Amino acid sequence: MAASDTRNDGAARQQAQADAALRQVTEPESQVVRFPDNEPLQLDSGRDIAPLTIAYQTYGTLNADKSNAILICHALTGDQHVANTHPVTGKGGWWATLVGPGKPVDTDRFFVICANILGGCMGSTGPASVNPATDKPYGVDFPVITIGDMVKAQARLVDYLGIDQLFSVIGGSMGGMQALQWCARYKERVFTAMPIATAPWHTAQNIAFHEVGRQAVMADPDWQGGAYYNTKARPARGLAVARMAAHITYLSEKALQDKFGRGLQNRDAHSFSFDADFKIESYLRHQGSTFVDRFDANSYLYITRAMDYFDLEAEYGKLAAAFNGTKTQFCVVSFTSDWLYPTRDNKEIVKALNGVAANVSFVEIESDKGHDAFLLEEEVFFATVRGFLNAAAKKRGIA
Amino acid sequence: MAASDTRNDGAARQQAQADAALRQVTEPESQVVRFPDNEPLQLDSGRDIAPLTIAYQTYGTLNADKSNAILICHALTGDQHVANTHPVTGKGGWWATLVGPGKPVDTDRFFVICANILGGCMGSTGPASVNPATDKPYGVDFPVITIGDMVKAQARLVDYLGIDQLFSVIGGSMGGMQALQWCARYKERVFTAMPIATAPWHTAQNIAFHEVGRQAVMADPDWQGGAYYNTKARPARGLAVARMAAHITYLSEKALQDKFGRGLQNRDAHSFSFDADFKIESYLRHQGSTFVDRFDANSYLYITRAMDYFDLEAEYGKLAAAFNGTKTQFCVVSFTSDWLYPTRDNKEIVKALNGVAANVSFVEIESDKGHDAFLLEEEVFFATVRGFLNAAAKKRGIA
Repeated sequence: MAASDTRNDGAARQQAQADAALRQVTEPESQVVRFPDNEPLQLDSGRDIAPLTIAYQTYGTLNADKSNAILICHALTGDQHVANTHPVTGKGGWWATLVGPGKPVDTDRFFVICANILGGCMGSTGPASVNPATDKPYGVDFPVITIGDMVKAQARLVDYLGIDQLFSVIGGSMGGMQALQWCARYKERVFTAMPIATAPWHTAQNIAFHEVGRQAVMADPDWQGGAYYNTKARPARGLAVARMAAHITYLSEKALQDKFGRGLQNRDAHSFSFDADFKIESYLRHQGSTFVDRFDANSYLYITRAMDYFDLEAEYGKLAAAFNGTKTQFCVVSFTSDWLYPTRDNKEIVKALNGVAANVSFVEIESDKGHDAFLLEEEVFFATVRGFLNAAAKKRGIA
Repeated sequence: MAASDTRNDGAARQQAQADAALRQVTEPESQVVRFPDNEPLQLDSGRDIAPLTIAYQTYGTLNADKSNAILICHALTGDQHVANTHPVTGKGGWWATLVGPGKPVDTDRFFVICANILGGCMGSTGPASVNPATDKPYGVDFPVITIGDMVKAQARLVDYLGIDQLFSVIGGSMGGMQALQWCARYKERVFTAMPIATAPWHTAQNIAFHEVGRQAVMADPDWQGGAYYNTKARPARGLAVARMAAHITYLSEKALQDKFGRGLQNRDAHSFSFDADFKIESYLRHQGSTFVDRFDANSYLYITRAMDYFDLEAEYGKLAAAFNGTKTQFCVVSFTSDWLYPTRDNKEIVKALNGVAANVSFVEIESDKGHDAFLLEEEVFFATVRGFLNAAAKKRGIA
C-alpha cells in the first residue's frame, strides 16, 4: 500500500470516528431516559433545561429491595461506558479492570449505574444537543452548569430507576467531586461513598490549567463562537492543544521521565526541525489528535467550567457543614504522586468529615503514576475498593 | 471618556507597541555588531548563518586589563535590557534590582555585557531577520539552533570586545544553560560562573510543556507556516495560549494560591459564563496578551526548541565530562519551590562538578515563589551573588 493510501485510510477512519462520535449525541448506543418538557431541570444558575435526556449504562441486576445499586461518576473526559466496549473508539471500558463479574466492584453482587454527565457529548443533554427554542444545537446558548447540576440530573435518573438509596457513589477526579456533592445534597440517599483522587474545591492552579485549555479552544477560528456543528469545521486544533496541556497534569514528572525521558521517536538524532523528534512530543500529539475524534469541544468548555466553579466550602460556608449530620460511610483515596489533586486536598475532605464525626477511612496509595493512577490496575487501590465495598455490603445485608 | 474610546485607545497603544517591537528586529535601540557576510556562524546543525548580527547592552566600564567583564545570559523571553528601561514596554530592566551601581552585580566595579540571544527578536539575528538569500524574513527557513550556537555567537561578541576571559558568566533558567555551555566549550575563558535555577538537560516534562506551546502557535492559522511578517496578521492567539501555559510553570502552586486563590475579578459572584470570573484567569489572559505585543512567535518556537535539545550529558557522553579539567569557580543556585528546574536538577550539576574536583559551591534558597524567584528581590539570593562575586574579584585582583 502506498504511503498516500495509508494516509487516506487514516483520514477516512478518523472521519468515520468523528461521525460516530457525533451520532452518540442524538442516538447514543446506551440506555436513554428523556424527561418530559414540562419537567425542566432547575440549574444552580437559575436557568432551566428541558427536555433533559440522560444516557446511561447499567451492569448486573438490581436486587429485590433495591439496596445494591452503585452509581459510578465519570471524570472530565470519561463517559458512561465504564465496563463495555466503547461505541466510538472500540476500546474497552475505562474502568473495565475495576468493574465486572468478580471484580472489586462486583457486578455479580451489585447493580452498577453510570450516566453520561449533564453537559457531556455521549447522549446526555449538552451543548451539542438540540436547543428546542431554536431547533439547532445549543452551542454557547447552553447554560453554564455546575457539579451540583450534574448530580441533580443523576438523582433524576436514580428516581426514574426507583432507587431510594444508593449503596455507594464512587468516582475519581471530577467523579469524586460528584460523589462529594451527592453526599452533601442527598444525605439520606447515599449509604457509602468513595471519593478518589479528588478535591473539595478547585485551586488557582487547577483553574489556571483549565483556563489555558478553554482559551486554546476559543482561539481556534474553527470554534466559530461555539456554532460549529452545522459547518464542516470543528475546533480540532484548539481542542488538541487543550488536551495536550491537560494530559501533562494527569501524569507525574517521574512517570513521564521513566516512560519517555529524552528518548527519540523513530530516529537516531535530532532532526533540527519542528518534527516530533522526542517520544514525549509524539505521545502528546497522539493524545491530542485521538481526543478530538471522540469529544465535543463545547462540552470540554462547559465541563471544565463546572469543575472550576466547584467549591463545597463556599457553598456551605465551611467544608464540614457540607457533611453535617451525614450517616454515609466514606472511604477517601489519594495517590502519592498525584499533583493535580494531591493528598493534601483529599485530606481536607477527611478533616471536614472528622469535624462532623463522620464514619471515614482514608487510604493514601503509593504510586508514581500521577493523577491517572486511579484509572490503572493498582493492586492496593483495587484491594481497598473490594474490601470497603464487601464490608459495607455485609453491614447493609447484601448477599 | 466612553468605553469604546478607551478600547480604541487600548488597541492603538497595543498596535504601537507591536510596531515598536517589530522595529527592534532591524533597528534595535541597543549597541549592535554585525559580522561580515564572509564570516558565517557555523551551527551545530551543520548549517551556517551569515551575516550574524548581535544586539547587546553594556553597563559599567571595562578595566585596563579587561579582567572585570561579566556576561549575563538571558532566559527564554528575556533580552539584553537587563538594567535599563525596556524600549518596547517602557518598564525597568528585568534584573535592574540585581545589576547596577552598588548592587550585587556592581556596575561600579564590573563591566556587564548582555546580548540578545541568537534566535531572539530584539536585534540579534533570528527568524524575523532578513534572510539574505531571499531578502525576506527567514521565518521557518531560519536554521534550528542550539544553546551551544547561542554561546558561540556570544563568544564572537566577547572576541569583538577584545576580552579573553570573562570574570563571570551568570544566568538563570535558559541563561543558566548558556552559562554551563560556556564552561563546557570555552573552559579557559570563564573565571567564575553562576548557573541559577537551571538544569543540565531538559526533562520529558520540560519538553512536554514546550511542545504544547509550539503546537498552540502552529495551530493558529495566522501563523501561516511562519511566513506572517509581511501580512497584517500575527499568531497572537496561539502565542498567548503558549505563554499562559508556560506561565503556570514559572510559579509555584502555593504562590498561585496565596496570590489569587479562588478570588473573583471585579465581581461578587460567578457570572455563569466564560468570562474571566477568577483573578487567576484575568492574570493569565493579561500575561498572554501583553507578551504577544513584545515577542516574536517564531523566536518562541526556535528558542524553546533549543532548550529542548539541550543535554550536556548526551553531548559529552557523561555530564562530568563536560567540565573535565575546568578551572572555573562555580556557584550553583536553586530555589526550593521551583518545579520547572527543581533543586534535584541543579544538584546534578553540582554532582558532575564534584566528579571532576571542580571548585563549586551550592546554595538552595528557601522561596515559595517558584521558578520566577530568580527574577525577584530575594534577600538570600542577592547576598549570595554579592558574596560570591566579591570573593572571586578579590582572588582575581579586581579593585
